[in-house]
Amino acid sequence: MFGGFVRRYAHQSRELGCKMVFTVFFPPAVTKAPVVYYLSGLTCTDENFVQKAGAQRKAAELGLAVVAPDTSPRGLGIEGEDESWDFGTGAGFYLDATADKWRQYRMYSYITQELPALLRSMPELDVDNAGIMGHSMGGHGALTIALKNPTAYKSVSAFAPICNPTQVPWGQKAFAGYLGEQWQEVAQQYDATELARQYSGPSLPVLMDTGTDDEFLKTQLHPWAFEEAARGKLQVESRMNEGYDHSYFTIATFMDDHLSFHAKHILPSAA
Amino acid sequence: MFGGFVRRYAHQSRELGCKMVFTVFFPPAVTKAPVVYYLSGLTCTDENFVQKAGAQRKAAELGLAVVAPDTSPRGLGIEGEDESWDFGTGAGFYLDATADKWRQYRMYSYITQELPALLRSMPELDVDNAGIMGHSMGGHGALTIALKNPTAYKSVSAFAPICNPTQVPWGQKAFAGYLGEQWQEVAQQYDATELARQYSGPSLPVLMDTGTDDEFLKTQLHPWAFEEAARGKLQVESRMNEGYDHSYFTIATFMDDHLSFHAKHILPSAA
Repeated sequence: MFGGFVRRYAHQSRELGCKMVFTVFFPPAVTKAPVVYYLSGLTCTDENFVQKAGAQRKAAELGLAVVAPDTSPRGLGIEGEDESWDFGTGAGFYLDATADKWRQYRMYSYITQELPALLRSMPELDVDNAGIMGHSMGGHGALTIALKNPTAYKSVSAFAPICNPTQVPWGQKAFAGYLGEQWQEVAQQYDATELARQYSGPSLPVLMDTGTDDEFLKTQLHPWAFEEAARGKLQVESRMNEGYDHSYFTIATFMDDHLSFHAKHILPSAA
Repeated sequence: MFGGFVRRYAHQSRELGCKMVFTVFFPPAVTKAPVVYYLSGLTCTDENFVQKAGAQRKAAELGLAVVAPDTSPRGLGIEGEDESWDFGTGAGFYLDATADKWRQYRMYSYITQELPALLRSMPELDVDNAGIMGHSMGGHGALTIALKNPTAYKSVSAFAPICNPTQVPWGQKAFAGYLGEQWQEVAQQYDATELARQYSGPSLPVLMDTGTDDEFLKTQLHPWAFEEAARGKLQVESRMNEGYDHSYFTIATFMDDHLSFHAKHILPSAA
Protein backbone atom coordinates (compact mmCIF):
# COMPACT_ATOMS: atom_id res chain seq x y z
CA MET A 1 0.00 0.00 0.00
CA PHE A 2 1.47 3.38 -1.06
CA GLY A 3 4.79 1.65 -1.66
CA GLY A 4 4.91 0.25 1.88
CA PHE A 5 3.43 -2.82 3.53
CA VAL A 6 0.42 -3.54 5.74
CA ARG A 7 1.34 -6.59 7.79
CA ARG A 8 -0.91 -8.29 10.31
CA TYR A 9 0.61 -10.33 13.13
CA ALA A 10 -0.83 -12.85 15.58
CA HIS A 11 0.92 -13.89 18.78
CA GLN A 12 0.20 -15.56 22.09
CA SER A 13 0.11 -12.76 24.67
CA ARG A 14 1.78 -13.34 28.01
CA GLU A 15 -0.04 -10.42 29.66
CA LEU A 16 -3.50 -11.32 28.38
CA GLY A 17 -3.35 -15.11 28.16
CA CYS A 18 -4.84 -15.33 24.70
CA LYS A 19 -3.97 -14.94 21.05
CA MET A 20 -3.69 -11.29 20.07
CA VAL A 21 -3.56 -9.66 16.66
CA PHE A 22 -2.02 -6.35 15.64
CA THR A 23 -1.21 -4.63 12.35
CA VAL A 24 1.85 -2.60 11.40
CA PHE A 25 2.12 -0.29 8.41
CA PHE A 26 5.74 -0.16 7.25
CA PRO A 27 6.53 2.92 5.13
CA PRO A 28 8.69 2.54 2.02
CA ALA A 29 12.30 3.64 1.74
CA VAL A 30 12.95 3.93 5.49
CA THR A 31 15.40 1.55 7.13
CA LYS A 32 14.29 2.31 10.69
CA ALA A 33 10.93 4.02 11.00
CA PRO A 34 9.70 5.91 14.08
CA VAL A 35 6.49 4.42 15.44
CA VAL A 36 3.05 5.93 16.00
CA TYR A 37 0.66 3.74 17.97
CA TYR A 38 -3.05 4.00 17.21
CA LEU A 39 -5.44 2.85 19.93
CA SER A 40 -8.95 2.11 18.69
CA GLY A 41 -12.32 2.84 20.26
CA LEU A 42 -15.10 0.67 21.66
CA THR A 43 -16.08 -2.40 19.59
CA CYS A 44 -13.13 -2.00 17.19
CA THR A 45 -10.31 -4.32 16.22
CA ASP A 46 -7.13 -3.26 14.41
CA GLU A 47 -9.04 -3.62 11.12
CA ASN A 48 -11.29 -0.56 11.49
CA PHE A 49 -8.25 1.69 11.60
CA VAL A 50 -6.36 -0.13 8.87
CA GLN A 51 -9.29 -0.05 6.45
CA LYS A 52 -11.03 3.22 7.28
CA ALA A 53 -8.67 5.83 8.71
CA GLY A 54 -6.72 6.51 5.51
CA ALA A 55 -3.48 6.87 7.46
CA GLN A 56 -1.14 4.96 5.17
CA ARG A 57 -0.72 7.59 2.44
CA LYS A 58 0.61 10.25 4.80
CA ALA A 59 2.56 7.74 6.92
CA ALA A 60 4.28 6.53 3.74
CA GLU A 61 5.10 10.10 2.75
CA LEU A 62 6.45 11.00 6.19
CA GLY A 63 8.29 7.72 6.78
CA LEU A 64 6.33 6.72 9.87
CA ALA A 65 5.36 3.21 10.92
CA VAL A 66 1.86 2.93 12.40
CA VAL A 67 1.01 0.16 14.86
CA ALA A 68 -2.64 -0.74 15.47
CA PRO A 69 -3.34 -3.20 18.32
CA ASP A 70 -6.68 -4.73 19.26
CA THR A 71 -8.92 -3.24 21.98
CA SER A 72 -9.12 -6.11 24.49
CA PRO A 73 -8.27 -9.75 25.05
CA ARG A 74 -10.68 -12.05 23.19
CA GLY A 75 -12.17 -15.44 23.84
CA LEU A 76 -11.03 -15.81 27.44
CA GLY A 77 -14.33 -17.44 28.36
CA ILE A 78 -15.11 -15.02 31.19
CA GLU A 79 -18.82 -15.08 31.98
CA GLY A 80 -20.47 -12.00 30.45
CA GLU A 81 -17.44 -10.95 28.39
CA ASP A 82 -19.55 -10.66 25.21
CA GLU A 83 -22.70 -9.20 26.76
CA SER A 84 -21.95 -5.46 26.37
CA TRP A 85 -20.52 -3.41 23.55
CA ASP A 86 -18.97 -1.02 26.08
CA PHE A 87 -17.49 -3.51 28.53
CA GLY A 88 -15.53 -6.76 28.15
CA THR A 89 -14.60 -7.89 24.63
CA GLY A 90 -13.67 -4.90 22.45
CA ALA A 91 -13.71 -2.58 25.44
CA GLY A 92 -10.52 -3.14 27.47
CA PHE A 93 -10.14 0.58 28.29
CA TYR A 94 -6.33 0.31 28.23
CA LEU A 95 -6.05 -0.40 31.96
CA ASP A 96 -4.86 -3.30 34.13
CA ALA A 97 -7.93 -4.75 35.80
CA THR A 98 -7.77 -5.54 39.49
CA ALA A 99 -11.21 -7.09 39.97
CA ASP A 100 -10.50 -10.80 40.22
CA LYS A 101 -12.97 -11.83 37.53
CA TRP A 102 -11.33 -9.57 34.93
CA ARG A 103 -7.71 -9.95 36.04
CA GLN A 104 -6.64 -11.03 32.54
CA TYR A 105 -7.72 -7.65 31.15
CA ARG A 106 -4.27 -6.07 31.22
CA MET A 107 -4.33 -3.86 28.14
CA TYR A 108 -2.25 -1.17 29.89
CA SER A 109 0.68 -3.53 30.41
CA TYR A 110 0.13 -5.06 26.98
CA ILE A 111 0.36 -1.70 25.20
CA THR A 112 3.15 -0.20 27.29
CA GLN A 113 5.33 -3.29 27.82
CA GLU A 114 4.59 -6.45 25.87
CA LEU A 115 3.81 -4.87 22.50
CA PRO A 116 6.84 -2.52 22.39
CA ALA A 117 9.09 -5.43 23.40
CA LEU A 118 7.71 -7.44 20.48
CA LEU A 119 8.17 -4.52 18.08
CA ARG A 120 11.81 -4.21 19.14
CA SER A 121 12.42 -7.54 17.44
CA MET A 122 11.56 -5.90 14.10
CA PRO A 123 14.68 -4.20 12.77
CA GLU A 124 12.61 -1.89 10.51
CA LEU A 125 11.16 -0.07 13.55
CA ASP A 126 12.63 2.64 15.74
CA VAL A 127 10.59 1.98 18.88
CA ASP A 128 12.53 4.56 20.91
CA ASN A 129 11.07 7.33 18.78
CA ALA A 130 7.37 6.90 19.32
CA GLY A 131 4.15 8.85 19.48
CA ILE A 132 0.72 7.61 20.47
CA MET A 133 -2.76 8.47 19.27
CA GLY A 134 -6.25 7.04 19.56
CA HIS A 135 -9.98 7.47 19.08
CA SER A 136 -12.67 7.75 21.76
CA MET A 137 -11.81 4.97 24.28
CA GLY A 138 -8.47 4.82 22.45
CA GLY A 139 -8.04 8.58 22.83
CA HIS A 140 -8.48 8.02 26.57
CA GLY A 141 -5.89 5.26 26.25
CA ALA A 142 -3.40 7.42 24.37
CA LEU A 143 -3.70 10.38 26.77
CA THR A 144 -3.45 8.31 29.95
CA ILE A 145 -0.63 6.10 28.68
CA ALA A 146 1.42 9.10 27.53
CA LEU A 147 0.88 11.01 30.79
CA LYS A 148 1.92 7.97 32.83
CA ASN A 149 4.98 7.36 30.60
CA PRO A 150 6.08 10.77 29.34
CA THR A 151 9.56 9.61 28.38
CA ALA A 152 8.31 6.65 26.29
CA TYR A 153 6.19 8.81 23.96
CA LYS A 154 7.32 12.13 22.51
CA SER A 155 3.89 13.22 21.34
CA VAL A 156 0.27 12.28 21.95
CA SER A 157 -2.88 12.97 19.97
CA ALA A 158 -6.51 11.98 20.09
CA PHE A 159 -9.68 12.00 18.04
CA ALA A 160 -12.81 12.55 20.14
CA PRO A 161 -11.17 11.21 23.32
CA ILE A 162 -12.98 10.29 26.52
CA CYS A 163 -11.15 12.88 28.62
CA ASN A 164 -12.59 12.51 32.09
CA PRO A 165 -13.87 8.94 32.35
CA THR A 166 -14.46 8.94 36.11
CA GLN A 167 -17.21 11.52 35.50
CA VAL A 168 -19.09 9.85 32.61
CA PRO A 169 -21.13 6.66 32.12
CA TRP A 170 -18.70 4.76 29.85
CA GLY A 171 -15.81 5.31 32.24
CA GLN A 172 -17.78 4.65 35.40
CA LYS A 173 -19.10 1.35 34.05
CA ALA A 174 -15.67 0.23 32.89
CA PHE A 175 -13.82 1.28 36.02
CA ALA A 176 -16.42 -0.22 38.37
CA GLY A 177 -16.20 -3.48 36.47
CA TYR A 178 -12.45 -3.73 35.97
CA LEU A 179 -11.25 -2.06 39.18
CA GLY A 180 -13.82 -3.44 41.62
CA GLU A 181 -15.89 -1.96 44.38
CA GLN A 182 -13.31 0.54 45.55
CA TRP A 183 -12.76 1.83 42.00
CA GLN A 184 -13.18 5.49 42.92
CA GLU A 185 -10.04 5.32 45.07
CA VAL A 186 -7.81 4.18 42.21
CA ALA A 187 -9.55 5.28 39.03
CA GLN A 188 -7.82 8.66 38.86
CA GLN A 189 -4.69 6.85 37.68
CA TYR A 190 -6.65 6.05 34.52
CA ASP A 191 -8.36 9.42 34.09
CA ALA A 192 -6.60 11.81 31.70
CA THR A 193 -8.01 14.90 33.38
CA GLU A 194 -6.96 13.69 36.85
CA LEU A 195 -3.53 12.71 35.54
CA ALA A 196 -3.11 16.16 33.97
CA ARG A 197 -4.03 17.80 37.29
CA GLN A 198 -1.33 15.83 39.09
CA TYR A 199 1.19 15.98 36.24
CA SER A 200 4.70 17.31 36.85
CA GLY A 201 6.66 15.75 33.95
CA PRO A 202 8.03 17.26 30.76
CA SER A 203 5.60 19.45 28.79
CA LEU A 204 4.38 16.91 26.24
CA PRO A 205 2.81 18.15 22.99
CA VAL A 206 -0.87 17.12 22.72
CA LEU A 207 -3.19 17.47 19.70
CA MET A 208 -6.91 16.77 20.03
CA ASP A 209 -9.71 16.93 17.43
CA THR A 210 -13.35 16.65 18.39
CA GLY A 211 -16.51 17.37 16.40
CA THR A 212 -19.27 19.74 17.42
CA ASP A 213 -21.80 17.18 16.13
CA ASP A 214 -20.25 14.27 18.00
CA GLU A 215 -23.22 12.51 19.61
CA PHE A 216 -21.06 11.66 22.65
CA LEU A 217 -19.47 15.08 23.15
CA LYS A 218 -21.50 16.24 26.12
CA THR A 219 -22.27 12.88 27.70
CA GLN A 220 -18.94 11.04 27.41
CA LEU A 221 -16.02 13.11 26.06
CA HIS A 222 -15.59 16.39 28.03
CA PRO A 223 -12.50 17.74 26.24
CA TRP A 224 -12.80 21.04 28.11
CA ALA A 225 -12.14 19.29 31.44
CA PHE A 226 -8.82 18.01 30.13
CA GLU A 227 -7.93 21.35 28.53
CA GLU A 228 -8.41 23.14 31.82
CA ALA A 229 -6.48 20.59 33.87
CA ALA A 230 -3.59 20.58 31.39
CA ARG A 231 -3.21 24.34 31.17
CA GLY A 232 0.40 25.37 31.83
CA LYS A 233 1.57 21.76 32.14
CA LEU A 234 1.18 20.33 28.64
CA GLN A 235 1.29 21.92 25.18
CA VAL A 236 -2.32 21.24 24.26
CA GLU A 237 -3.93 22.14 20.95
CA SER A 238 -7.58 21.08 21.22
CA ARG A 239 -9.74 21.81 18.19
CA MET A 240 -13.53 21.76 17.99
CA ASN A 241 -14.56 21.00 14.41
CA GLU A 242 -17.88 22.35 13.22
CA GLY A 243 -20.25 19.65 11.97
CA TYR A 244 -18.00 16.64 12.52
CA ASP A 245 -19.21 13.53 14.35
CA HIS A 246 -17.77 10.48 16.16
CA SER A 247 -17.09 8.42 13.02
CA TYR A 248 -14.08 7.29 11.02
CA PHE A 249 -15.02 10.00 8.48
CA THR A 250 -13.89 12.48 11.13
CA ILE A 251 -10.76 10.50 11.92
CA ALA A 252 -9.82 10.28 8.23
CA THR A 253 -10.35 14.02 7.78
CA PHE A 254 -7.87 14.96 10.51
CA MET A 255 -5.49 11.98 10.25
CA ASP A 256 -2.93 13.77 8.07
CA ASP A 257 -2.67 16.60 10.59
CA HIS A 258 -2.11 14.13 13.41
CA LEU A 259 0.57 12.20 11.55
CA SER A 260 2.35 15.45 10.62
CA PHE A 261 2.15 16.51 14.26
CA HIS A 262 3.76 13.26 15.43
CA ALA A 263 6.38 13.42 12.66
CA LYS A 264 7.47 16.83 13.88
CA HIS A 265 8.27 15.33 17.27
CA ILE A 266 9.52 11.83 16.53
CA LEU A 267 11.35 11.93 13.19
CA PRO A 268 15.14 11.91 13.57
CA SER A 269 15.29 15.35 11.94
CA ALA A 270 13.11 16.63 14.80
CA ALA A 271 15.88 15.91 17.34
CA MET B 1 -15.55 14.71 5.67
CA PHE B 2 -12.64 16.88 4.41
CA GLY B 3 -14.94 19.89 4.51
CA GLY B 4 -17.50 18.21 2.24
CA PHE B 5 -20.37 15.83 2.87
CA VAL B 6 -20.92 12.09 2.51
CA ARG B 7 -24.63 11.62 1.92
CA ARG B 8 -26.39 8.29 1.50
CA TYR B 9 -29.68 8.11 -0.38
CA ALA B 10 -32.35 5.44 -0.67
CA HIS B 11 -34.97 5.40 -3.42
CA GLN B 12 -37.43 3.06 -5.06
CA SER B 13 -35.88 2.09 -8.40
CA ARG B 14 -38.12 1.97 -11.43
CA GLU B 15 -35.61 -0.11 -13.44
CA LEU B 16 -34.89 -2.65 -10.73
CA GLY B 17 -38.19 -2.83 -8.86
CA CYS B 18 -36.67 -2.56 -5.41
CA LYS B 19 -35.25 -0.06 -2.97
CA MET B 20 -31.77 1.03 -3.99
CA VAL B 21 -29.11 2.88 -2.02
CA PHE B 22 -26.29 5.07 -3.28
CA THR B 23 -23.81 7.48 -1.73
CA VAL B 24 -22.60 10.83 -3.01
CA PHE B 25 -19.54 12.69 -1.78
CA PHE B 26 -20.07 16.42 -2.22
CA PRO B 27 -16.84 18.43 -2.23
CA PRO B 28 -16.67 21.74 -0.32
CA ALA B 29 -16.68 25.16 -1.94
CA VAL B 30 -18.00 24.04 -5.34
CA THR B 31 -21.43 25.20 -6.46
CA LYS B 32 -21.75 22.65 -9.27
CA ALA B 33 -19.34 19.72 -9.10
CA PRO B 34 -18.44 17.41 -12.00
CA VAL B 35 -19.28 13.80 -11.22
CA VAL B 36 -17.14 10.67 -11.10
CA TYR B 37 -19.07 7.42 -10.81
CA TYR B 38 -17.44 4.53 -8.95
CA LEU B 39 -18.75 1.05 -9.73
CA SER B 40 -17.88 -1.54 -7.10
CA GLY B 41 -16.81 -5.15 -7.47
CA LEU B 42 -18.41 -8.48 -6.59
CA THR B 43 -20.06 -8.72 -3.12
CA CYS B 44 -19.70 -4.98 -2.46
CA THR B 45 -22.23 -2.30 -1.65
CA ASP B 46 -21.59 1.45 -1.85
CA GLU B 47 -20.13 1.26 1.67
CA ASN B 48 -16.90 -0.56 0.79
CA PHE B 49 -15.86 2.30 -1.45
CA VAL B 50 -17.03 5.03 0.90
CA GLN B 51 -15.20 3.57 3.90
CA LYS B 52 -12.09 2.02 2.36
CA ALA B 53 -11.03 3.72 -0.88
CA GLY B 54 -9.85 6.98 0.68
CA ALA B 55 -11.21 8.98 -2.25
CA GLN B 56 -12.75 11.88 -0.37
CA ARG B 57 -9.56 13.79 0.46
CA LYS B 58 -8.48 14.15 -3.16
CA ALA B 59 -12.05 14.63 -4.43
CA ALA B 60 -12.47 17.48 -1.94
CA GLU B 61 -9.20 19.04 -3.08
CA LEU B 62 -10.09 18.74 -6.78
CA GLY B 63 -13.75 19.75 -6.42
CA LEU B 64 -15.18 16.48 -7.72
CA ALA B 65 -18.36 14.75 -6.60
CA VAL B 66 -18.09 10.97 -6.39
CA VAL B 67 -21.18 8.79 -6.78
CA ALA B 68 -21.10 5.20 -5.52
CA PRO B 69 -24.10 3.01 -6.41
CA ASP B 70 -24.80 -0.53 -5.24
CA THR B 71 -23.82 -3.61 -7.30
CA SER B 72 -27.22 -5.24 -7.93
CA PRO B 73 -30.88 -5.14 -7.00
CA ARG B 74 -31.48 -6.66 -3.56
CA GLY B 75 -34.27 -8.62 -1.98
CA LEU B 76 -36.26 -9.33 -5.14
CA GLY B 77 -37.03 -12.82 -3.90
CA ILE B 78 -35.72 -14.56 -7.03
CA GLU B 79 -34.97 -18.19 -6.27
CA GLY B 80 -31.19 -18.62 -5.84
CA GLU B 81 -30.41 -14.90 -5.77
CA ASP B 82 -28.37 -15.24 -2.58
CA GLU B 83 -26.68 -18.57 -3.34
CA SER B 84 -23.49 -17.35 -5.03
CA TRP B 85 -21.07 -14.57 -4.21
CA ASP B 86 -20.34 -14.11 -7.92
CA PHE B 87 -23.91 -14.19 -9.30
CA GLY B 88 -27.20 -12.65 -8.21
CA THR B 89 -27.19 -10.33 -5.20
CA GLY B 90 -24.04 -8.18 -5.16
CA ALA B 91 -23.07 -9.34 -8.64
CA GLY B 92 -25.26 -7.56 -11.19
CA PHE B 93 -22.41 -7.19 -13.72
CA TYR B 94 -23.78 -3.83 -14.93
CA LEU B 95 -25.85 -5.37 -17.72
CA ASP B 96 -29.55 -5.64 -18.57
CA ALA B 97 -30.53 -9.27 -18.12
CA THR B 98 -32.63 -10.91 -20.81
CA ALA B 99 -33.14 -14.32 -19.20
CA ASP B 100 -36.71 -14.20 -17.95
CA LYS B 101 -35.89 -15.26 -14.39
CA TRP B 102 -33.42 -12.37 -13.94
CA ARG B 103 -35.25 -9.75 -16.00
CA GLN B 104 -35.24 -7.30 -13.06
CA TYR B 105 -31.43 -7.23 -13.12
CA ARG B 106 -31.09 -4.06 -15.17
CA MET B 107 -28.00 -2.46 -13.68
CA TYR B 108 -26.89 -1.15 -17.10
CA SER B 109 -30.03 0.94 -17.50
CA TYR B 110 -29.96 1.86 -13.83
CA ILE B 111 -26.42 3.26 -14.01
CA THR B 112 -26.70 4.90 -17.43
CA GLN B 113 -30.28 6.25 -17.23
CA GLU B 114 -32.11 6.15 -13.92
CA LEU B 115 -29.25 7.18 -11.64
CA PRO B 116 -28.06 10.16 -13.76
CA ALA B 117 -31.65 11.35 -14.04
CA LEU B 118 -31.94 11.28 -10.26
CA LEU B 119 -28.64 13.11 -9.84
CA ARG B 120 -29.85 15.85 -12.18
CA SER B 121 -32.33 16.81 -9.48
CA MET B 122 -29.40 17.78 -7.23
CA PRO B 123 -28.35 21.34 -8.07
CA GLU B 124 -24.85 20.78 -6.57
CA LEU B 125 -23.94 18.31 -9.33
CA ASP B 126 -22.81 18.89 -12.91
CA VAL B 127 -23.93 15.57 -14.38
CA ASP B 128 -22.99 16.62 -17.93
CA ASN B 129 -19.34 16.61 -16.96
CA ALA B 130 -18.79 13.05 -15.83
CA GLY B 131 -16.16 10.35 -15.67
CA ILE B 132 -16.61 6.74 -14.63
CA MET B 133 -14.36 4.31 -12.78
CA GLY B 134 -14.69 0.96 -11.09
CA HIS B 135 -13.01 -2.05 -9.51
CA SER B 136 -12.94 -5.62 -10.82
CA MET B 137 -16.56 -6.33 -11.89
CA GLY B 138 -17.02 -2.56 -11.56
CA GLY B 139 -13.99 -1.97 -13.77
CA HIS B 140 -15.72 -4.14 -16.38
CA GLY B 141 -18.81 -2.00 -15.80
CA ALA B 142 -16.96 1.30 -16.19
CA LEU B 143 -15.16 0.24 -19.37
CA THR B 144 -18.23 -1.23 -21.09
CA ILE B 145 -20.54 1.59 -20.08
CA ALA B 146 -18.09 4.25 -21.30
CA LEU B 147 -17.45 2.48 -24.60
CA LYS B 148 -21.18 2.13 -25.21
CA ASN B 149 -21.82 5.79 -24.25
CA PRO B 150 -18.69 7.69 -25.22
CA THR B 151 -20.39 11.07 -25.18
CA ALA B 152 -21.85 10.63 -21.68
CA TYR B 153 -18.47 10.07 -20.01
CA LYS B 154 -15.36 12.09 -20.80
CA SER B 155 -12.94 9.73 -19.09
CA VAL B 156 -12.89 6.16 -17.82
CA SER B 157 -10.62 4.37 -15.38
CA ALA B 158 -10.45 1.02 -13.69
CA PHE B 159 -8.73 -0.82 -10.88
CA ALA B 160 -8.07 -4.49 -11.68
CA PRO B 161 -10.92 -4.65 -14.22
CA ILE B 162 -12.36 -7.83 -15.72
CA CYS B 163 -11.39 -6.91 -19.27
CA ASN B 164 -12.56 -9.82 -21.38
CA PRO B 165 -15.42 -11.45 -19.47
CA THR B 166 -16.64 -13.71 -22.30
CA GLN B 167 -13.32 -15.58 -21.97
CA VAL B 168 -13.16 -16.07 -18.18
CA PRO B 169 -15.19 -17.99 -15.56
CA TRP B 170 -16.74 -15.00 -13.75
CA GLY B 171 -17.99 -13.50 -16.99
CA GLN B 172 -19.17 -16.75 -18.52
CA LYS B 173 -21.16 -17.65 -15.41
CA ALA B 174 -22.76 -14.19 -15.22
CA PHE B 175 -23.55 -13.91 -18.93
CA ALA B 176 -24.94 -17.44 -19.16
CA GLY B 177 -27.18 -16.71 -16.20
CA TYR B 178 -28.34 -13.22 -17.07
CA LEU B 179 -28.41 -13.46 -20.86
CA GLY B 180 -29.76 -16.99 -21.23
CA GLU B 181 -28.85 -19.95 -23.40
CA GLN B 182 -27.84 -17.93 -26.47
CA TRP B 183 -25.56 -15.67 -24.38
CA GLN B 184 -22.56 -16.07 -26.64
CA GLU B 185 -24.42 -14.32 -29.46
CA VAL B 186 -25.05 -11.16 -27.44
CA ALA B 187 -22.38 -11.11 -24.75
CA GLN B 188 -19.87 -9.14 -26.83
CA GLN B 189 -21.97 -6.05 -26.18
CA TYR B 190 -20.93 -6.41 -22.53
CA ASP B 191 -17.28 -7.36 -23.10
CA ALA B 192 -14.83 -4.43 -22.94
CA THR B 193 -12.32 -6.14 -25.21
CA GLU B 194 -14.96 -6.93 -27.84
CA LEU B 195 -16.37 -3.41 -27.58
CA ALA B 196 -12.89 -1.94 -28.06
CA ARG B 197 -12.37 -4.11 -31.18
CA GLN B 198 -15.60 -2.78 -32.71
CA TYR B 199 -15.16 0.76 -31.40
CA SER B 200 -15.26 3.71 -33.79
CA GLY B 201 -16.17 6.60 -31.47
CA PRO B 202 -14.07 9.45 -30.09
CA SER B 203 -10.70 8.46 -28.61
CA LEU B 204 -11.63 8.30 -24.93
CA PRO B 205 -8.88 8.54 -22.31
CA VAL B 206 -8.59 5.32 -20.26
CA LEU B 207 -6.47 4.70 -17.14
CA MET B 208 -6.09 1.19 -15.70
CA ASP B 209 -4.15 -0.05 -12.66
CA THR B 210 -3.67 -3.73 -11.97
CA GLY B 211 -1.34 -5.50 -9.52
CA THR B 212 1.18 -8.17 -10.43
CA ASP B 213 0.18 -10.07 -7.28
CA ASP B 214 -3.54 -9.88 -8.01
CA GLU B 215 -4.79 -13.42 -7.42
CA PHE B 216 -7.31 -13.02 -10.26
CA LEU B 217 -4.96 -11.48 -12.83
CA LYS B 218 -4.42 -14.53 -15.01
CA THR B 219 -7.74 -16.28 -14.46
CA GLN B 220 -10.24 -13.41 -14.60
CA LEU B 221 -8.80 -9.99 -15.54
CA HIS B 222 -6.75 -10.19 -18.80
CA PRO B 223 -5.83 -6.48 -19.10
CA TRP B 224 -3.52 -7.26 -22.04
CA ALA B 225 -6.48 -8.39 -24.17
CA PHE B 226 -8.13 -5.01 -23.74
CA GLU B 227 -4.88 -3.12 -24.30
CA GLU B 228 -4.36 -4.87 -27.61
CA ALA B 229 -7.94 -4.40 -28.79
CA ALA B 230 -7.91 -0.70 -27.85
CA ARG B 231 -4.62 0.14 -29.55
CA GLY B 232 -5.04 3.11 -31.88
CA LYS B 233 -8.70 3.61 -30.90
CA LEU B 234 -8.54 4.74 -27.28
CA GLN B 235 -5.91 6.61 -25.27
CA VAL B 236 -5.09 3.77 -22.86
CA GLU B 237 -2.59 3.97 -20.02
CA SER B 238 -2.53 0.53 -18.40
CA ARG B 239 -0.11 0.10 -15.51
CA MET B 240 1.03 -3.15 -13.92
CA ASN B 241 1.98 -2.47 -10.31
CA GLU B 242 4.61 -4.71 -8.75
CA GLY B 243 3.42 -6.50 -5.63
CA TYR B 244 -0.11 -5.10 -5.51
CA ASP B 245 -3.16 -7.35 -5.11
CA HIS B 246 -6.94 -7.25 -5.69
CA SER B 247 -7.81 -5.43 -2.45
CA TYR B 248 -8.97 -1.97 -1.42
CA PHE B 249 -5.37 -1.34 -0.28
CA THR B 250 -4.49 -1.28 -3.98
CA ILE B 251 -7.47 0.89 -4.86
CA ALA B 252 -6.59 3.40 -2.11
CA THR B 253 -2.99 3.54 -3.29
CA PHE B 254 -3.90 4.55 -6.84
CA MET B 255 -7.13 6.45 -6.13
CA ASP B 256 -5.52 9.91 -6.13
CA ASP B 257 -4.04 9.27 -9.57
CA HIS B 258 -7.43 8.21 -10.92
CA LEU B 259 -9.23 11.22 -9.50
CA SER B 260 -6.57 13.56 -10.91
CA PHE B 261 -6.92 11.81 -14.27
CA HIS B 262 -10.69 12.34 -14.31
CA ALA B 263 -10.31 15.94 -13.09
CA LYS B 264 -8.08 16.69 -16.06
CA HIS B 265 -10.89 15.70 -18.40
CA ILE B 266 -14.07 16.76 -16.64
CA LEU B 267 -13.29 19.92 -14.67
CA PRO B 268 -14.58 23.09 -16.36
CA SER B 269 -11.00 24.34 -16.68
CA ALA B 270 -10.25 21.24 -18.79
CA ALA B 271 -12.62 22.42 -21.52
